[in-house]
Amino acid sequence: MNKKIHNIQLRVRYGETDQMGVCYYAEYFEWFEVARTEFLRNLGLPYTEFEKKGIFLPVKAAYCEYKSPVKYDDLVNIKIELLEKGNSSVSFKYEITCQDRLVALGKTTHVFVDKNFKPNRIPPELEKSLL
Amino acid sequence: MNKKIHNIQLRVRYGETDQMGVCYYAEYFEWFEVARTEFLRNLGLPYTEFEKKGIFLPVKAAYCEYKSPVKYDDLVNIKIELLEKGNSSVSFKYEITCQDRLVALGKTTHVFVDKNFKPNRIPPELEKSLL
Amino acid sequence: MNKKIHNIQLRVRYGETDQMGVCYYAEYFEWFEVARTEFLRNLGLPYTEFEKKGIFLPVKAAYCEYKSPVKYDDLVNIKIELLEKGNSSVSFKYEITCQDRLVALGKTTHVFVDKNFKPNRIPPELEKSLL
Amino acid sequence: MNKKIHNIQLRVRYGETDQMGVCYYAEYFEWFEVARTEFLRNLGLPYTEFEKKGIFLPVKAAYCEYKSPVKYDDLVNIKIELLEKGNSSVSFKYEITCQDRLVALGKTTHVFVDKNFKPNRIPPELEKSLL
Repeated sequence: MNKKIHNIQLRVRYGETDQMGVCYYAEYFEWFEVARTEFLRNLGLPYTEFEKKGIFLPVKAAYCEYKSPVKYDDLVNIKIELLEKGNSSVSFKYEITCQDRLVALGKTTHVFVDKNFKPNRIPPELEKSLL
Repeated sequence: MNKKIHNIQLRVRYGETDQMGVCYYAEYFEWFEVARTEFLRNLGLPYTEFEKKGIFLPVKAAYCEYKSPVKYDDLVNIKIELLEKGNSSVSFKYEITCQDRLVALGKTTHVFVDKNFKPNRIPPELEKSLL
Repeated sequence: MNKKIHNIQLRVRYGETDQMGVCYYAEYFEWFEVARTEFLRNLGLPYTEFEKKGIFLPVKAAYCEYKSPVKYDDLVNIKIELLEKGNSSVSFKYEITCQDRLVALGKTTHVFVDKNFKPNRIPPELEKSLL
Repeated sequence: MNKKIHNIQLRVRYGETDQMGVCYYAEYFEWFEVARTEFLRNLGLPYTEFEKKGIFLPVKAAYCEYKSPVKYDDLVNIKIELLEKGNSSVSFKYEITCQDRLVALGKTTHVFVDKNFKPNRIPPELEKSLL
């Protein structure tokens, strides 16, 4: 099993659509976040545990390329993959598909920080689990 | 000037619409919150100041009745009015209009609490300003 | 099996929390909508099929009572139950729980309408499936 | 007056924050959309008019770089600037500031399409107004 890749499925909610009849573009970034949550849980390192220890992982940059729209009630797959791991940062890429159709490609980069948004080293248990 | 009533205006955002072509029903509750923020600022008591002192005002109950839909880019007026003031609670009612058309009626009730969600007395400066 | 009751589970997303550290109150209404979607699918009558036939089910009124907060990553259960069925309307009640704790109680009422928001009779296949 | 640059101001809503105590990263993309709406209105070409004529402007790519967080009730300025104009596409860049502090930099690219998401030429009145 490749621990650096994880897949989740979710359905487009009605409230996520807009009057163009498709999912609103900003919602994809919330889905990326759901994918990150499940990526870390899959490693046995739920993100809630990091925040309890005072380690936060805010977003430094986020990108999404929209390939084809999705609609209400569509079942989408989000593939998240660890892209890079630095001393205090990580980046992920995302591929959203619906059946066999490519919906979107994305990327986010993050920095580990403490409560005061000061950079922190990547947590050692995360580093180890990604070896 | 009646300090117990305040009006705000806002425009329906594209992301607030859904595929029915109208504003999604849950967004109205976020607008109610914007109205509460401006209601308190208008009293000279910005809500940020309460939270800095460890006083929070979560919602205990929320209600909205939808009278006619609004669309993207519509300019709506939200009239907020203090309805009741208890020892540790407040309630507000809301009227959303668009030009002269009634859009929605709402109500929220709140309890003042501390950081641990324990009930708190209504802050004295708020009590005084509402006399 | 009681077709008038359905349960769904979902996790609180990070983006659904607010700075009080708990889920923001308006999000519950989006969860109610997710529950309605799955309620209808469970009857074999996906809501997408209604809209394809030009039948829409906007919200006429929505209510939520907040009993105890939920946090990021909490797994919540939403029990949806058909409350009333009129000639052109339906209402649902909701109970949100987290483990054995009561989180919220809600209610929504809806009217079947056509594309121009003119009231429509309740679709016969829905009527039949709820007998 | 430079018609290719426009500024708007908005306040961070409570519902836009997350449990990190700052504005959630996906909300910035909704603000970019608000800025686009006002950019077009400022040209005398409200986007609602385009959609009435069957011209839509979905997002093809979106990017945001987060420089420093903003909090509930912060008043932010969003500077939107037309970056490029092609035969059927436009791109914008964004600068979000709060007082004199840089909050975020962004970019979106868009393609003019018809109701069926088929590419369309840039509307001539928009082309003319941007000369």
